[in-house]
Amino acid sequence: MPASEEILLADANSTAIMPKVSRQTDFQLVRVKSTWCRIKKGELICDPEDAITVSQAKITEMIADGEVSWTIEAPIYFCYKVVETCHLLDPANRTLLFGHLRHQEDLERALKRREAHRRFIVIDKTVDDLYGSLVRKYFEANNVEYKILSLPTGEETKSMDLVLDILQEVQSFGIDRRAEPIIAIGGGACLDIVGLAASLYRRRTPYIRVPTTLLSYVDASVGAKNGVNFLQCKNKLGSYVPPVATFLDRAFIQTIPRQHISNGLGEILKMALMKHRGLLDLLKTHGKFLLDTKFQSHNGLVDHGDAALKTTRIAIEMMLEELAPNLWEDDLNRLVDFGHLISPELEMRALPSLMHGEAVNVDMAFMTYLSYVKGFLNEKEKTHIIQCMISLELPVWHKECTWHLIKKALTERLKHSGGQVRMPLPTGLGTADIFNDISEETLERAYILWSSECMNMS
Amino acid sequence: MPASEEILLADANSTAIMPKVSRQTDFQLVRVKSTWCRIKKGELICDPEDAITVSQAKITEMIADGEVSWTIEAPIYFCYKVVETCHLLDPANRTLLFGHLRHQEDLERALKRREAHRRFIVIDKTVDDLYGSLVRKYFEANNVEYKILSLPTGEETKSMDLVLDILQEVQSFGIDRRAEPIIAIGGGACLDIVGLAASLYRRRTPYIRVPTTLLSYVDASVGAKNGVNFLQCKNKLGSYVPPVATFLDRAFIQTIPRQHISNGLGEILKMALMKHRGLLDLLKTHGKFLLDTKFQSHNGLVDHGDAALKTTRIAIEMMLEELAPNLWEDDLNRLVDFGHLISPELEMRALPSLMHGEAVNVDMAFMTYLSYVKGFLNEKEKTHIIQCMISLELPVWHKECTWHLIKKALTERLKHSGGQVRMPLPTGLGTADIFNDISEETLERAYILWSSECMNMS
Repeated sequence: MPASEEILLADANSTAIMPKVSRQTDFQLVRVKSTWCRIKKGELICDPEDAITVSQAKITEMIADGEVSWTIEAPIYFCYKVVETCHLLDPANRTLLFGHLRHQEDLERALKRREAHRRFIVIDKTVDDLYGSLVRKYFEANNVEYKILSLPTGEETKSMDLVLDILQEVQSFGIDRRAEPIIAIGGGACLDIVGLAASLYRRRTPYIRVPTTLLSYVDASVGAKNGVNFLQCKNKLGSYVPPVATFLDRAFIQTIPRQHISNGLGEILKMALMKHRGLLDLLKTHGKFLLDTKFQSHNGLVDHGDAALKTTRIAIEMMLEELAPNLWEDDLNRLVDFGHLISPELEMRALPSLMHGEAVNVDMAFMTYLSYVKGFLNEKEKTHIIQCMISLELPVWHKECTWHLIKKALTERLKHSGGQVRMPLPTGLGTADIFNDISEETLERAYILWSSECMNMS
Repeated sequence: MPASEEILLADANSTAIMPKVSRQTDFQLVRVKSTWCRIKKGELICDPEDAITVSQAKITEMIADGEVSWTIEAPIYFCYKVVETCHLLDPANRTLLFGHLRHQEDLERALKRREAHRRFIVIDKTVDDLYGSLVRKYFEANNVEYKILSLPTGEETKSMDLVLDILQEVQSFGIDRRAEPIIAIGGGACLDIVGLAASLYRRRTPYIRVPTTLLSYVDASVGAKNGVNFLQCKNKLGSYVPPVATFLDRAFIQTIPRQHISNGLGEILKMALMKHRGLLDLLKTHGKFLLDTKFQSHNGLVDHGDAALKTTRIAIEMMLEELAPNLWEDDLNRLVDFGHLISPELEMRALPSLMHGEAVNVDMAFMTYLSYVKGFLNEKEKTHIIQCMISLELPVWHKECTWHLIKKALTERLKHSGGQVRMPLPTGLGTADIFNDISEETLERAYILWSSECMNMS
């Protein structure tokens, strides 16, 4: 053990059993051949001729009060791709099979492989009814040995039981964990369930997300979160393991109901209000067109250009900006939480009639009034935002969203966000900040104004 | 979107739908106030007066073949403490309650707290019978509001069912996820089950490991792995989430049976053979004493000094060196896999009569002969190792460990280690390397020699 500084501690209250000597040594880790060894930070490595690898991990050894402790700090690098593609289920499009590969060499090796490729696919039952035959044709045309598990996925079935059912099938099909990612095709619930199953299987098995609803396209698809409900609590169990890849194809959105389009637009609007004035303008101008055409605008109608492409792409980019630096949500100050402070409580009361994006919008509408009352938004900006929500056919008020519920929801928020409310609020059109100093009196004034103006708008 | 270089691709086989233009842009992420935004790598930030945070995460945008893709690379920093202490259950020792805190300020804040501290503890049934009253006294003396869940933990009960049972109790007790780590007290199975439960709860709840067997003290305690068995497969489901802290107190070891001491010595010997000649010498000299005294040598018998302290501390340090740089096992070349190539197959046949550390030792004994046949060890070194194993009362041969089983186990190994066997082998006393070029003929010669020499030794 290398020598290091010794410092006498003068802690009279210490419960020391051994002499009160404190010594701290910082080690870095280097590998010589196959053996890792710790060396004191800054110390020279004996033989510079050896092929040496230096780790980013470090170990701090501390001797104090008769205890030895080692503090280990080790970074894990997550890497994943989000790919926007067309004709994902066209057998000539290689994305679904190989789009997750990062390097040209990986692709070449995969294409040269003699044995059949194998894939395990979980597909939502409704999606299977609509696209199942195309999915099967895709894998058959590409000579893939596959197993498709078609499951009813939704908030009701989103449980650990379903995760274990999937894993049983995975185990009986058998997969090469390094080469055969599990594929999930469906809405947010399906992607969440399969993501958790894959992240548990052999401690981490790569998986691919193919979102088929607008909401999951712009929301569940881009981050690391997965999860299932437990004891009537939403997403109580889960993990933060990103997929190897997410494949985005707007074609799936054409078959979802109009209300589900609005639902997804709620989350897109969230990103617009928080950080992108241009996106807000796009939604204001093309909202109705996007609802009418269900984001299938690449046929190039002159007036609306590629509004569907632009809005979804910007929304994805904005989400990635906010999620990538905070993949495990270690930082509790999150703009993406806008619309998610009051809505969890509201959803518990009003689901399933009120959809997630709708509940988020009711929350955002209230917060818009709060910003107005705080003086962050002027009358014109407030009206602009509410009008935009209405044009997207989103509710701007809800009878279950009472003053009592708002107070309860914000108390819950305090508990789960380290004692501060960390409230994202718009500070203009497409700009925002996070606030902690909102008084109950201000909240109540906002609530009264919001109710009087919006009650009859939804 | 910032402009960037455009390169025309010349891929005739491409399934392009849009023009074949490839453009790659690397972004880094900076936060201005509460908003993250991507900027081109190397680009100047507009207003240097702003308080700016730069993330380690990066996003690479690629436009090619009509697809847009974003590759997200984001590091997550794991940090955990391993603390060697004495008298862990002495109410005056603060380690169990606060030893996981990293900074003096955190400790001061915790000590100042007015409300009672709360802890949820899972304890193995057998450990509870022996130490349960001490554990209860500890929390009562420290005015902690606690719930102790006493469970029979072992290979048979190590299942997702038990994980969910624990989580139901956690939910009904209620914990503040940021301030109240779940505590697991028991052997490896207990630590594995609770670790998985905690890592799933709200996507990650801090937990603390208190190992009570020698094996879990030197092995399960120091890494990030947790898991449960599934469909008769060992540790098939799990995750790589380290505890916030592991508290090591050798006092627990005094109550485990002699065979369990040998079992733990198997894993200590592994580290000695791979990378620490001094540890090997300690085991050789003090092995019988450590078995007789069950590692309770801090009473200071002159001849054996602090052999128990030294051997366990070195074993922990060696494990940490190997695990910290490879916390998620992304690198498949692992010295800690020594003794774990053939033993999984052997355990499936010979459990529960053969314990884990014993199966590992049978594997290591065979590998020692393989090293000898390869010329990495001389006759004297080989004999030295086998004699040391015997002195630790570890089996050096097993009737179920047939030539057929060895071949089967190594074929399995190939499947799960990316097509290469990656076999750690001693290359001297306390040094090792990893090999891939071992022929079946060499393996068979080693097997024959091993069987003829060791069959009657165990």
